[in-house]
Amino acid sequence: MTEPVTQVIETGGAHLARGLAKVEARLREIAAAAGEPVAGWAGDTIAAGGKRLRPLLVLLAAGDDSPAAVRAAAAVELVHAATLVHDDVLDSAPLRRGRPTVWSTAGRDAAIVTGDHLFARAFSELVANDDVVQIRSLSRASSSLASGELLQRADAWDTAVTVERYLERCELKTARLFEAACDLGELSAGSGDAPVLGAFGRRVGLAFQILDDVLDVTGPPERTGKHRGADLLDGTVTLPLILAGFEDLDLRAITTPAQAEAVCDRIAASGALERSRERALVYVDEAKRALPEGMPTAQRRAFELVADGVVERYS
Amino acid sequence: MTEPVTQVIETGGAHLARGLAKVEARLREIAAAAGEPVAGWAGDTIAAGGKRLRPLLVLLAAGDDSPAAVRAAAAVELVHAATLVHDDVLDSAPLRRGRPTVWSTAGRDAAIVTGDHLFARAFSELVANDDVVQIRSLSRASSSLASGELLQRADAWDTAVTVERYLERCELKTARLFEAACDLGELSAGSGDAPVLGAFGRRVGLAFQILDDVLDVTGPPERTGKHRGADLLDGTVTLPLILAGFEDLDLRAITTPAQAEAVCDRIAASGALERSRERALVYVDEAKRALPEGMPTAQRRAFELVADGVVERYS
Repeated sequence: MTEPVTQVIETGGAHLARGLAKVEARLREIAAAAGEPVAGWAGDTIAAGGKRLRPLLVLLAAGDDSPAAVRAAAAVELVHAATLVHDDVLDSAPLRRGRPTVWSTAGRDAAIVTGDHLFARAFSELVANDDVVQIRSLSRASSSLASGELLQRADAWDTAVTVERYLERCELKTARLFEAACDLGELSAGSGDAPVLGAFGRRVGLAFQILDDVLDVTGPPERTGKHRGADLLDGTVTLPLILAGFEDLDLRAITTPAQAEAVCDRIAASGALERSRERALVYVDEAKRALPEGMPTAQRRAFELVADGVVERYS
Repeated sequence: MTEPVTQVIETGGAHLARGLAKVEARLREIAAAAGEPVAGWAGDTIAAGGKRLRPLLVLLAAGDDSPAAVRAAAAVELVHAATLVHDDVLDSAPLRRGRPTVWSTAGRDAAIVTGDHLFARAFSELVANDDVVQIRSLSRASSSLASGELLQRADAWDTAVTVERYLERCELKTARLFEAACDLGELSAGSGDAPVLGAFGRRVGLAFQILDDVLDVTGPPERTGKHRGADLLDGTVTLPLILAGFEDLDLRAITTPAQAEAVCDRIAASGALERSRERALVYVDEAKRALPEGMPTAQRRAFELVADGVVERYS
């Protein structure tokens, strides 16, 4: 089977492959410009960032690989990377996608400074698009990310967290940046109209986070870069656990990967994974229906493939 | 003797007192809007921020207390506050201006998230001024702050650091945000001309940082909120130590406040404090000379008082 991301690129138009290559080159340039040692840490963080789903959404929404679209895509990815490097400090995470984190190799101070640097650079990059509406969109998403990270910490170890509260966290932590990615792409194309694709991005972001949380329970570790049940050991209560209804479970008593994997097996046996996936599918369906009527066929098909790809756990 | 800040306000025009009150109210609003518990931590960080020298520069450069000037002033102070809360994590600082830090009361995670939040909110605030040039100025200053913090860590414990390298650090850590404060004020007044007051801000920022470093050696603790020689215990090599020429000093061997204070006494006896102050005075003088010819008398006099006030250690 072809990788979902490859399908999207093949379907959506030649500007996607070109644009992603430009974004990659630009991210490398930005990291290198920081000077050593930050350049190395920033570069490692960006390299560990995965499949560039957010830049892909920007380029797809833009419909071109113009300098403005590439800058917007790089800016969104920089905010994402800044968040990752700070999250790794908060989580004391040794690995991300199977690679050592800046926190683990260079320490807490290096990771905090690297994150601050990437974050500041995101705005410097986007500023060149000369569009305050784009900056507003990205700064709102950035505030949301910080609030979402906090909500996660406030709710840690609390197995009585509601589905609504969990979804609010997904909204802040993930969906708002996906929404901004689509808005920024559309805005950078410069039609002058108010962007409409954010509604697609937001829903795909919700589905993405839910399925990411499912993947933490199911593994396999080769794909996630960590053992199953890492969220349980962090005290992060996610939809599969909430729907499994183990309200009496004492998360603090789970202290080893083996214990976490045993709880994962119990969650799987409860049917909560299927029910979580169903919720995600509803958002994927809503996302597709949020695509505007008059959208060109190739673009629509590519957006639909992104939405379907999220379900096939594409990140 | 009247406080320098009071003199500036009395001299510079009624808009300064009004503007600072509006900035204060706006900062409180922004902190509160974060929702608990971040609201409390953000509020504490902002409350610990001192005498609002950066917002004062914005308002002074703007020449009014328009909504745009107040937003710019709040944005600059939010970036400053974000930096402080992250610096306290990096320094494991229990106190700032004699008050417990977020790091010490709520922990590392709370402080990282609070800083990220304040930083994101700075840009959200400034975006409302609808001026990409202002955002560019603030994002550059923010990148510089992160780079400066890093340079400080890279140079830690190294008593062979040069004066040039020390000044580069001051430029990044302090002067660029002072420069941005002046630029933002001028830009928010909207004459359409390129800003010229940044040159004043930059030099005053350099003087401010040098004198801040002198104050770390001289105390008194009631004014700094920490014992003398805190920089020595952190491994931060500053101008007084460089000029004292103690290149054989092993900073890592200084582990108690009493030892640090003894080294402070040796630095003072070497005459390095006077020589540091002289360097600062050169920047203060340059700052005043950077003020443009045609500036109204009251505004000029207020700017000069800011510069002189920095020498009287006004922060």
